[in-house]
Amino acid sequence: MTYPFISKLRVIESSAFIAAPLAGLTLAQYGADVIRIDNIGGGIDYGRMPRMPHPQGRGRSLYWTSLNKGKRSIAIDLRRPEGRELIQALVTAPGEDAGVLLTNIGTPWLSHELLEQRRHDVITCTIQGNGDGSTAVDYTVNCATGYPAVTGGGSVEHPVNHVLPAWDIACAYQAAFAVLAAVNHRRITGAGSELKLALADIAFSALSHLGVLSEAELLQQERPSIGNHLYGAFGRDFATKDSQRVMVVAISAGQWKALIRCCDIADAIASLQDKTGLDFSDEAQRFEARDKIAALIEPWFAERPFTEVKIALEENKVCWGQYQTVTELLANDPRASLTNPVFERAVTPGIGEHMSAGAAVRAPALPREPMKSAPYLGTHTDEVLSGLLGLDSGAIGRLHDARIVAGPEQDPTFA
Amino acid sequence: MTYPFISKLRVIESSAFIAAPLAGLTLAQYGADVIRIDNIGGGIDYGRMPRMPHPQGRGRSLYWTSLNKGKRSIAIDLRRPEGRELIQALVTAPGEDAGVLLTNIGTPWLSHELLEQRRHDVITCTIQGNGDGSTAVDYTVNCATGYPAVTGGGSVEHPVNHVLPAWDIACAYQAAFAVLAAVNHRRITGAGSELKLALADIAFSALSHLGVLSEAELLQQERPSIGNHLYGAFGRDFATKDSQRVMVVAISAGQWKALIRCCDIADAIASLQDKTGLDFSDEAQRFEARDKIAALIEPWFAERPFTEVKIALEENKVCWGQYQTVTELLANDPRASLTNPVFERAVTPGIGEHMSAGAAVRAPALPREPMKSAPYLGTHTDEVLSGLLGLDSGAIGRLHDARIVAGPEQDPTFA
Repeated sequence: MTYPFISKLRVIESSAFIAAPLAGLTLAQYGADVIRIDNIGGGIDYGRMPRMPHPQGRGRSLYWTSLNKGKRSIAIDLRRPEGRELIQALVTAPGEDAGVLLTNIGTPWLSHELLEQRRHDVITCTIQGNGDGSTAVDYTVNCATGYPAVTGGGSVEHPVNHVLPAWDIACAYQAAFAVLAAVNHRRITGAGSELKLALADIAFSALSHLGVLSEAELLQQERPSIGNHLYGAFGRDFATKDSQRVMVVAISAGQWKALIRCCDIADAIASLQDKTGLDFSDEAQRFEARDKIAALIEPWFAERPFTEVKIALEENKVCWGQYQTVTELLANDPRASLTNPVFERAVTPGIGEHMSAGAAVRAPALPREPMKSAPYLGTHTDEVLSGLLGLDSGAIGRLHDARIVAGPEQDPTFA
Repeated sequence: MTYPFISKLRVIESSAFIAAPLAGLTLAQYGADVIRIDNIGGGIDYGRMPRMPHPQGRGRSLYWTSLNKGKRSIAIDLRRPEGRELIQALVTAPGEDAGVLLTNIGTPWLSHELLEQRRHDVITCTIQGNGDGSTAVDYTVNCATGYPAVTGGGSVEHPVNHVLPAWDIACAYQAAFAVLAAVNHRRITGAGSELKLALADIAFSALSHLGVLSEAELLQQERPSIGNHLYGAFGRDFATKDSQRVMVVAISAGQWKALIRCCDIADAIASLQDKTGLDFSDEAQRFEARDKIAALIEPWFAERPFTEVKIALEENKVCWGQYQTVTELLANDPRASLTNPVFERAVTPGIGEHMSAGAAVRAPALPREPMKSAPYLGTHTDEVLSGLLGLDSGAIGRLHDARIVAGPEQDPTFA
């Protein structure tokens, strides 16, 4: 579902992989008209896994179509000067809330300097690996953050990569924000902006914001490698009698009291406090005694089947969650179902009907519209050339004949 | 460092933990005037670990001060009607780009309905655990995403939590974006907005955007648990002769060729292709043969010390990164040093001098200003009451005398 928060905004996107497309998707889901520039035949990530099965190997990528729903697509031959000229014209086409480029492809013919000569107030947002323009991806940045050395009981010698591309996601949402901030700035001052957002800067600035950098610098201490324990308070996973697994967290005083009540361990906790001289009403002292506390809780979970555990956790208002697979999430969790207004059933051409998430925000008072599904490459070639550049059907026909632009039937996955 | 992109915007923040404070920090770093409402004596997270050592246990939290730099603080007794009245007045104070509340504390006296009666175009952004208002935190949402069941070779029975609070961070940046989108909408339509952003919606919508939900629904397949391997192409960590560890990625054709060249394994790769009938120019087929490819690469790293490995990787333009601790990051990595314009030396009262990250974005043409450091609770009480509500010194003095508001000297960590 989309909201019309920024429905006057038009963004031209030339991108691949996660961060830049997800930034464009976010802008689209809040109402912007996001137009992808796609190479004829598709870019570097157009066939990225997972893909739909197809006898001739032409199955659409679920990765690409999920990241590019809600956008329009114009297919252009990016190698030819006429194609590049068209793209420059699209980025710098007039319109108060137009003139915005979102990209992670640093090509000289789409540089801010060049575009600025055609539209003085153009806004460009370029997503990079490193801030100096050198290559890096989520996984080669993440290894440098220290997190894999403390995830899952890991170490620098035996690091554990997390699977979620967290820095790509964080970068995407901050890039969407940066674009709007620059649009706001332009409306007030008349000035455009050249924006650069590097995955490495996103990651290392987050380490600063979370206090992790200061901890290392000022306390000379590294975050300990503590497996599934929560840092700084009490939280851990526990197995039920029937081998289900739940995560339990007691950060606030209320959550801590709820957990003690649920597991009926008030006396044991009091003895443990006496024995250790610690005060568990202080979250830091709960953290200090985490293993001893967990040992008191473990039997309660181990003796009960999940259905019983669940009822008790909810009755006592414990802060908890269940471990599950994605299949189980879709089958059993109402938060990823049509009862959640964030989700809808979408139909993507070449793929079929499936669950699809719109804007994560909920704005009860605003009308919400269904998402458009991911286009074939070039689905909107003619309407974009005519709508943005004012080309007539003769001129558009000549561009097709010269193979400078293409329609959806040239998409290798077109069916 | 901060940029003046949204310097006319004023946001009142009433928050704790990560998502909402980080959203406020992001707004502040792009130029907004963000005013924290703090309870006298501090909120639930004011002493959260890690903390500065202090003989009387009054050391400041590096967590809180890192998340709340760049903001102003007014300390108010939140339990008393007069305090609540002041907060409502601050949120709804006049100003074209004011009238914005950012919170994760769902109290009835700060409800959108109530505030709307005082300012019809108020914007409220409430961060929640679940979309129905029930409690959840990053860790109890993450267990439901399927990721811990495939991280570090884990399973549903033996899940591996990642340590990074990734959903909090993603939620923060999307919340900052949602606030700006609503401000944009108000400027055009005159209407306010009630915004709700749930951690669960952030997580499950990301699963949709990455194609993970469609994979489970349409292909009936779960992301495999593959340890430190990259999904869908080739990427893994390798140990050098001197036990350093590097992450190497070959997603694009160029990256794949670079890796083959660097490790001098063109012949062995050609044989492997012959033997398996696979074509490694296709990233999906590289993924299929990932273990066999890794076995060809492993010896090259194992036979060389890190210094030699590094030179070869860079000369051949391989996409790679080094595993390191946070201490090593600060000591050795220029990306987290003052040579990176994103970083600066800050001085936080009660803590001292330390590295600090400003806005992750780089905007070469715009002036950048140093961040203000995190305030003591109530540092800006008087200037906010006078500046926003027009109270004179007599009225402000009476509020202090009645202990409805407080200055920084009432901060328990004040030194």
